[in-house]
Amino acid sequence: MSHNKIHIFDTTLRDGEQVPGCKLNTKEKIELALSLEQLGVDIIEAGFPISSPGDFESVHEISKIIKNATICGLTRAVQKDIEVAAAALKPAVRPRIHTGIGASDIHIKYKFNTTREDIIDRAVKAVKLSKNFVDDVEFYAEDAGRADLSFLALLIEKVIAAGATVVNIPDTTGYCLPHQYGAIIAYLKNHVSNIDRAIISCHCHNDLGLATANSIAGVAHGARQIECTINGLGERAGNTSLEEVVMIIKQHKELDLYTDVNSQLLYPLSRQVSDTMRVPTQPNKAIVGANAFSHSSGIHQDGFLKEATTYEIIAPSEVGADLSKIVLTARSGRSALAFRLHKLGYQFTRDEIDTLYELFLQVADSKKEVADNDLHQMIPESMKIVADAMAH
Amino acid sequence: MSHNKIHIFDTTLRDGEQVPGCKLNTKEKIELALSLEQLGVDIIEAGFPISSPGDFESVHEISKIIKNATICGLTRAVQKDIEVAAAALKPAVRPRIHTGIGASDIHIKYKFNTTREDIIDRAVKAVKLSKNFVDDVEFYAEDAGRADLSFLALLIEKVIAAGATVVNIPDTTGYCLPHQYGAIIAYLKNHVSNIDRAIISCHCHNDLGLATANSIAGVAHGARQIECTINGLGERAGNTSLEEVVMIIKQHKELDLYTDVNSQLLYPLSRQVSDTMRVPTQPNKAIVGANAFSHSSGIHQDGFLKEATTYEIIAPSEVGADLSKIVLTARSGRSALAFRLHKLGYQFTRDEIDTLYELFLQVADSKKEVADNDLHQMIPESMKIVADAMAH
Repeated sequence: MSHNKIHIFDTTLRDGEQVPGCKLNTKEKIELALSLEQLGVDIIEAGFPISSPGDFESVHEISKIIKNATICGLTRAVQKDIEVAAAALKPAVRPRIHTGIGASDIHIKYKFNTTREDIIDRAVKAVKLSKNFVDDVEFYAEDAGRADLSFLALLIEKVIAAGATVVNIPDTTGYCLPHQYGAIIAYLKNHVSNIDRAIISCHCHNDLGLATANSIAGVAHGARQIECTINGLGERAGNTSLEEVVMIIKQHKELDLYTDVNSQLLYPLSRQVSDTMRVPTQPNKAIVGANAFSHSSGIHQDGFLKEATTYEIIAPSEVGADLSKIVLTARSGRSALAFRLHKLGYQFTRDEIDTLYELFLQVADSKKEVADNDLHQMIPESMKIVADAMAH
Repeated sequence: MSHNKIHIFDTTLRDGEQVPGCKLNTKEKIELALSLEQLGVDIIEAGFPISSPGDFESVHEISKIIKNATICGLTRAVQKDIEVAAAALKPAVRPRIHTGIGASDIHIKYKFNTTREDIIDRAVKAVKLSKNFVDDVEFYAEDAGRADLSFLALLIEKVIAAGATVVNIPDTTGYCLPHQYGAIIAYLKNHVSNIDRAIISCHCHNDLGLATANSIAGVAHGARQIECTINGLGERAGNTSLEEVVMIIKQHKELDLYTDVNSQLLYPLSRQVSDTMRVPTQPNKAIVGANAFSHSSGIHQDGFLKEATTYEIIAPSEVGADLSKIVLTARSGRSALAFRLHKLGYQFTRDEIDTLYELFLQVADSKKEVADNDLHQMIPESMKIVADAMAH
């Protein structure tokens, strides 16, 4: 294992499925798990086994089928949860139990009605119990983003001593700014004596639109796992988008990090998740939105046609998307019009393009998009005769 | 003007409208401009007047109607563009011309086929020409995110000397990481001798999902204007989301910044833009998505019912959204079920809730969401008789 590998922990089937209306049956979950394994994620969080009989069955069936990825089941720091998760994970080649408890004072006081000491006690017991069933135990310190840092460091030290192999530092409410989240990870790196015996994991929520930036700040400061979902699905405003962190790590070579994800499968899998879960992806979604690689403004189209790198930093083929589409609208410039007319088989002079561009703008002002058929109709018959003669 | 105010420059009607299929007519644009003024944005970029007759008309009509916000028109660093924009803006109480040119070597070479010296010459001429028509001139250094920093600083110094009141530093390709974008702004603050005579503006794109984080990094390092759109609409993966940066600035008091946006109008305006432009907002969109304030998992619902601040950091009323909805699914815990049953008029003991919870999980495993009517049907008649007696 290189120090520079970032483990991709996909929780589409657990945190993603918590989206209202996204509940999947076991068959659908198995299909997505197979696609996630093919994508190259390292860990698939398949469910929260004690939460319902359906979830137990899904984790159990996925554990039978997936051979390469680690299969993870969520639990609270509660004996029954852990026993049920262990039973669900029994057939897995690489099982992981994910257990944890609240770490911020607001959670300790209002949700658990207890003390910091008792939280450490419960956390250590949960990790030790989990180790009776599996070697790979991940501990989550819920609401770590708002926790007292010295208490958080103590808690993490104790669970690593108890055998935790991964420590998850969630920004549960999606509240942190990137430099703040990065500082928490750096603090743990510097203040937890046994931190090198575990992998630090980032689990960020998108309530303020910062989940991706926070996760990247986390790995820049020493975390080596990112918990994320396809299309950023998840509770409330969702989780970190898998496709965004994977492409940032791929594009920004200076980070000196890599993942084992095959980026060319991102776009097809995004569509599969959107269809299966029936959650639309907005056109302006980064990396996988329908418009992510479209160019419609005149200035941009002109630059793009001259040299694709002037505006595009990711080739659509890198994420398995179609070739860049040039959409003609009232914003399009002469070069975009000329390019399209050329593709349609017409050969016009610059003066003719100027004339046609005026006609084009009139059509475009009354239409949202100018289709190829609109272009054919727009061209005066007199110009067409010449054009047809030249079309071959 | 306080040093801590962040000017909100809305470009929904210009950069947002460049989304394929989003073209608006003048009447629709005027309605949105009136809503944006009511929201409290400082600047409305109303269009790119030379790009089409429809755009000219929209900028002209909006200039007549809007009295408080600054009205801005986009141009290239080209005489004809600037003259046409000035004509369109003529009726405005507070007109601004937004002119600019490519600043990165890749743009200078491939798009303009010229030299750095010529770029400075054209930029200075464009600003000076604009100043003949209006006092308020914003200059954009296109693709600043990939520009040579010392050249960028020189260019910015020259355009400020020529009269630019605002200097826009766009991350045109959405390539920068937050610490990199922040470093560019900090560099300009420290290396441009006359920088205090202009406002630095952030214009970020969302290709890697980082537009919001980059804009916040920009203002943290001295920028005082953010260019953004409602719902993050815009070319490709879109622009910075207005609603996200406004709420981050409002929530993070330690930034010591503020905007004049009335956040309670964010949610209604998000819906208006989505409806008018016919671009759906995904349910997991931060701040304005349909699920942004929903809670469906058992662990979260339990904490939320005990104390809303355990999971919510923004009250839905702060952004004009409905009260938090508790959606019942197979993930919901006993407390969420009990809460809903209580709201429906039932009073059950804890033991009864345990019994009902088993029934509920069976229903929930076969349904995506459990509606109130499902709950009524699920309750055995024997328990209902007692419940009905207690319902009032």
